[in-house]
Amino acid sequence: MGDVTARLERLAERLRVVAGAENVITDPAELRTYECDGLTYHRATPGVVVLPDGAEQIAEIVRACTAEKVPYIARGSGTGLSGGALPRTDGVLIVTSRMRRILEIDIEDERAVVEPGVINLDVSKAVRPGGYYYAPDPSSQQICSIGGNVAENSGGAHCLKYGFTVNHVLACEIVTPSGEIVDISEAPGYDLLGAFVGSEGTLGIATKVTVRLTRLPEAVETLLAAFTSIESAGEAVSAIIGAGVVPAAIEMMDALAIEAAEAAVHCEYPEGAGAVLVVELDGPSIEVEHQFAQVKELCGQAFEIRVAADDAERALIWRGRKSAFAAVGRISPDYIVQDGVIPRTALPEVLARIDEMSGDSGVRVANVFHAGDGNLHPLVLFDDAVPGAGERAEEVSGKILDLCIEHGGSITGEHGVGVDKAKHMPRMFTEEDLDTMQMVRCAFDPDGLCNPGKIYPTPRLCGEVPGRRTKVHPLVESGKADLF
Amino acid sequence: MGDVTARLERLAERLRVVAGAENVITDPAELRTYECDGLTYHRATPGVVVLPDGAEQIAEIVRACTAEKVPYIARGSGTGLSGGALPRTDGVLIVTSRMRRILEIDIEDERAVVEPGVINLDVSKAVRPGGYYYAPDPSSQQICSIGGNVAENSGGAHCLKYGFTVNHVLACEIVTPSGEIVDISEAPGYDLLGAFVGSEGTLGIATKVTVRLTRLPEAVETLLAAFTSIESAGEAVSAIIGAGVVPAAIEMMDALAIEAAEAAVHCEYPEGAGAVLVVELDGPSIEVEHQFAQVKELCGQAFEIRVAADDAERALIWRGRKSAFAAVGRISPDYIVQDGVIPRTALPEVLARIDEMSGDSGVRVANVFHAGDGNLHPLVLFDDAVPGAGERAEEVSGKILDLCIEHGGSITGEHGVGVDKAKHMPRMFTEEDLDTMQMVRCAFDPDGLCNPGKIYPTPRLCGEVPGRRTKVHPLVESGKADLF
Repeated sequence: MGDVTARLERLAERLRVVAGAENVITDPAELRTYECDGLTYHRATPGVVVLPDGAEQIAEIVRACTAEKVPYIARGSGTGLSGGALPRTDGVLIVTSRMRRILEIDIEDERAVVEPGVINLDVSKAVRPGGYYYAPDPSSQQICSIGGNVAENSGGAHCLKYGFTVNHVLACEIVTPSGEIVDISEAPGYDLLGAFVGSEGTLGIATKVTVRLTRLPEAVETLLAAFTSIESAGEAVSAIIGAGVVPAAIEMMDALAIEAAEAAVHCEYPEGAGAVLVVELDGPSIEVEHQFAQVKELCGQAFEIRVAADDAERALIWRGRKSAFAAVGRISPDYIVQDGVIPRTALPEVLARIDEMSGDSGVRVANVFHAGDGNLHPLVLFDDAVPGAGERAEEVSGKILDLCIEHGGSITGEHGVGVDKAKHMPRMFTEEDLDTMQMVRCAFDPDGLCNPGKIYPTPRLCGEVPGRRTKVHPLVESGKADLF
Repeated sequence: MGDVTARLERLAERLRVVAGAENVITDPAELRTYECDGLTYHRATPGVVVLPDGAEQIAEIVRACTAEKVPYIARGSGTGLSGGALPRTDGVLIVTSRMRRILEIDIEDERAVVEPGVINLDVSKAVRPGGYYYAPDPSSQQICSIGGNVAENSGGAHCLKYGFTVNHVLACEIVTPSGEIVDISEAPGYDLLGAFVGSEGTLGIATKVTVRLTRLPEAVETLLAAFTSIESAGEAVSAIIGAGVVPAAIEMMDALAIEAAEAAVHCEYPEGAGAVLVVELDGPSIEVEHQFAQVKELCGQAFEIRVAADDAERALIWRGRKSAFAAVGRISPDYIVQDGVIPRTALPEVLARIDEMSGDSGVRVANVFHAGDGNLHPLVLFDDAVPGAGERAEEVSGKILDLCIEHGGSITGEHGVGVDKAKHMPRMFTEEDLDTMQMVRCAFDPDGLCNPGKIYPTPRLCGEVPGRRTKVHPLVESGKADLF
């Protein structure tokens, strides 16, 4: 430990030269501000925090960390929900909040170049006068940063139609773990952008992001449909997608989630609803008008349908949905936000099973989710003051993931793996699959210093050459051939 | 050479055991069939050809090649235009044409699982009864294979609206250069799919491809608009895109390309056209109807507009465009197909410059291109019987790429880098950028046996650790700090 302390002290000295003394934090009280991201039940006070102002400084910081063999972790706004930006006490936390310049807006070619600390919503605000916006809209878009969005490949309610961050990033300037400043893009050669976006900060640090701008739609229509049961709401979702309509968003909330939202933001959703759907269509007026009529018809089982007459009413409808996570705090002292994916067609079955599990265990589960693409966000409620409650909630939360995997789904839809779900990776991937991913990690980061401990359950010793296990051809095994 | 011959002979023996003697070709005359792909001016007779029937056999072949240190190259239908499947005389060519089973069609979840040798158009044919098709449509779609499409990230006329192969592949089973069978997908962890699709066969061999199925549009409308000049056609393209219409396709052909198509397939395009546009819209009827009226209006400068009344007329309009490359053979004994990208907004300027270059050099250039996304396919005509003509054509073709790069575009839009354009890579990328890509290549293929010589101008010796060059911080350089 003394060795670690000495190395961190030497490193802090260097970082003061690189980034300026005022941008290096070593005071224990100040460091504690950074002890977790949105996954609050994992905490670690970082060894040193540094706030660089550009790619050159980050490259220098990375090289300094490498020289001292000190791990480093990048952090944007710290809103991630899987602990991707969880610091290390023996490491450096590189915070990008000073890098929030919008460097270029090119409306004609529909792109903008921004620094990683730029807030998601600020991109849309900046390009709105030109008739554009930035499409990916995580619920945290008012505070989350583009760099964090890139690391986590963030989604949002409108990703059903518009895709995730990876579909809206055209190029990145990154600092690699070797301390090089490199441009990656959807250009000839390997498209490293696809692997980098969503690599949760383990392949380097984005220092400049070129994002695709999306034209503001000519028309937007939003409705709230209230159903007596979650089954009938689910049937409406299937009917809408089955009819070939691709809404900008279809969001579902169950009774408990509605209750929470109501308590928190008074969104005035219809009373007595077993489930509500928020359906939004956007696009050319004539198409939206036509399809919106279709959607209303397909929601025929709803006992009430409200159509937003203007932007204010639209905002009111969305307020309930967008505040749902935070709102749950009103009805439960503690909760776990789960994030899993199932094929959309398995929705009714999985929801019924969750309901059953909740009944059996006595653990309340509020369901809020992107119904269109089968991305569930069950909120598992508990009271940490009750002995064993946290464990029971964890268990139910884990069983929900089991359900997702059983149904051919995924352990995460948009919150990432981070530290939270690394242990579940072997349930989705073979050892060979994981080795192949880690091969890339080792290529980028042979010293294992770039956000270690995230994504993969077993860090690979990068000296080992993976995939060299001896395999025997079936013909050889059966004695029919002598191959080698 | 004697050593190579011996190794190839030993290897052929093994491959006969693995894949069956009838599926291993060593006869020189038969081998010559495989000496090139669609880039016909690079040729090499493969050392051995093997036609495996599945992933296990391919894994075995790759391991056998690795044991003998013999390079190997995968090939689908061999329609690629950049020499990505160019064989090596000292290597093995792994041909996937026996692997053409459609393994699974899942209409409900909108996906199909196919073997790499399946012909692109056969996927659409198989799912059409369910109301679906496979969207990426390279001109060669009647013969090209899905495996080749994955390797080259193939595009096509309709990629403007629907995206490239990478946007339609959901998962791949691949054999890595270490001989492992691995699944990669858009799942948690690294999205290696993005890097693999378009890696031109250098990161492994796809053995199973899960593709996204696209719902057949409710309505399709196609028009042919004839303009007196290429400038006025270009203005119409800008006006259409500027109006926020996203056509399924906007294709442009200039006078020389029209002349060639006319000579070959009698497509009866309007006489005297300086340029034609083929514009296709698809989607919900009501949207298509409305936007089609808009497009007709925006093509107001055309001296003739023909609307396809039915599928037969639509096919006639497309016949001219789709046969344009081959048709050029009717008006010129030899030609080079160039493939470059420019920002759409630079179209008029670049086309004028090409015209100028053609005039100055006396080398005829026929322009056929995906106007909507700035992907140019100039056909540079020459007669190889005329001394120096080939060189002059090469020069003009190279200068067209210069123009693309000057305008912030790319050296390839959809034909890939292959052997053809490897030398141009350093013009788009820094040494650090290329090193970072090759880091991934070395991680996958430390022995450098998987399709070597493609994409990168300088093969990296995989022992070298890239990116460890000493960099000096500006403050140190200026004497203001003593950093290390």
